[in-house]
Amino acid sequence: MSGVGNWWVNGEPAESVSILDRGFTYADGLFETVAVRDGKPRFLDYHLERLSDGCRRLAIPYPAGVTDELCSIAAGCRFGTAKIILTRGAGARGYAPPEKLASTRVIGLIAAQPPARLAYEAGVAVRFCDTKVSANSTLAGMKTLARLEQVMARAEWQDAHISEGLMCSDDGLVICGTMTNLFFVANGRLCTSDVSRCGVSGVMRRVVMEQAGECGLECIEVDIDRQDLYQVKEIFLTNSLIGIWPVRQLQDTGLEIGSITRRLMAKLVAIGVTECAI
Amino acid sequence: MSGVGNWWVNGEPAESVSILDRGFTYADGLFETVAVRDGKPRFLDYHLERLSDGCRRLAIPYPAGVTDELCSIAAGCRFGTAKIILTRGAGARGYAPPEKLASTRVIGLIAAQPPARLAYEAGVAVRFCDTKVSANSTLAGMKTLARLEQVMARAEWQDAHISEGLMCSDDGLVICGTMTNLFFVANGRLCTSDVSRCGVSGVMRRVVMEQAGECGLECIEVDIDRQDLYQVKEIFLTNSLIGIWPVRQLQDTGLEIGSITRRLMAKLVAIGVTECAI
Repeated sequence: MSGVGNWWVNGEPAESVSILDRGFTYADGLFETVAVRDGKPRFLDYHLERLSDGCRRLAIPYPAGVTDELCSIAAGCRFGTAKIILTRGAGARGYAPPEKLASTRVIGLIAAQPPARLAYEAGVAVRFCDTKVSANSTLAGMKTLARLEQVMARAEWQDAHISEGLMCSDDGLVICGTMTNLFFVANGRLCTSDVSRCGVSGVMRRVVMEQAGECGLECIEVDIDRQDLYQVKEIFLTNSLIGIWPVRQLQDTGLEIGSITRRLMAKLVAIGVTECAI
Repeated sequence: MSGVGNWWVNGEPAESVSILDRGFTYADGLFETVAVRDGKPRFLDYHLERLSDGCRRLAIPYPAGVTDELCSIAAGCRFGTAKIILTRGAGARGYAPPEKLASTRVIGLIAAQPPARLAYEAGVAVRFCDTKVSANSTLAGMKTLARLEQVMARAEWQDAHISEGLMCSDDGLVICGTMTNLFFVANGRLCTSDVSRCGVSGVMRRVVMEQAGECGLECIEVDIDRQDLYQVKEIFLTNSLIGIWPVRQLQDTGLEIGSITRRLMAKLVAIGVTECAI
């Protein structure tokens, strides 16, 4: 099995977790996927801020030493992906969280290859998925271990020419890609789907919104339905591992890579997301 | 740690699963919680029907021999709980399900005590939870490993006098308890919350609907909002381990244990859910 990487559980090399770990039995935990470039975890502060915010919301104790552990593991890795999984820990059956539980901290490092240049230079083709993204204001924004809907959405296509699938909520709003956040330009304004009821508040989404602000571009969080997305001028996708992917095709409709997308890609390159250079 | 039980992974005694198991990384799997009474798994056919239906919907191969394995494990256990966890298996990072993957089958048996008599004789007190249940028509009805919202809802109270918490969808419909399905009598008709957009299609819910039919009582699946639930005549909760719990108190409002509830409890006793005898 390729792409397995090396793993540590609570600081010790390990390949398994307890059957009773609540991450396994109930998806009772969170994770982060961090780009490692030239021996350093990229935007680590933002990742750990989201993780600790999630811990606070879920009442999972945030473990000490994660920053040091990640930096130490990433050192020596030129291009890879670090993954942090944090669960409430192992406990007996039943949803009620036991009072005293030691959380489980799983960290892995997987060597990777840079994404294909073509995705940045020519843009990517995307489709709509039938699988819905869950609406739940209690959990929205967090990167919880409950990713089954993303798995099901990603299983909808095998065509290698399709890079990503867009997911809608049950009430028809376009929320995100299976592994990306969604941005677009409508009426001259930069927009991103609201993630207060569904979806994940991505680290690269945050970075792009901040970089837009630095360009004097206001970015607004909006609701958009599927039909209206065909009317917008520019569409692009973001995540921590890819930076920005411009969309050149939405189902059968072609799009241009627009000037705002190009400008934001250049801004990302300037702050170290060098994959986006075109 | 009490209530841990004995566990088997793919037929072998085991205490752990791979860090790469997609059940752990993505909640990419299903589970069943089965009452074991006098050496036999109760309503096993219904549990395995829901499990195989879920496998079909998720495209996870349904493993051979589960029935035999469960019956063999349950033999000799007078009163306990069997748990079956079925995941897509261990694979490299990424939501896309690898083409060839061997699913992981985890089975456990945990000794248990019968629920307190008082819950049946006097009824239980329930509260409303703030934590929402996710709306997602793609996943609704299945008992997936994504149970974080149930964990968060159950963590909302520690008062031992409250037996269960009711969960609503983001749009305000009352869907279920954290570990139970909801029934009530409104306008003289037996009703249960619709679970086609949210919630789990419980095995005991199915049994009760069938037993109602045998009594000549039609049971309808309806939408009900929180305020309207205070207007109903009888409320009861169901799951595989408890049978029926009559509700005697909803927040601060008292309820009588009604005649329809009592009749259905008696019907359950007659088919082997002896916990419900009052």
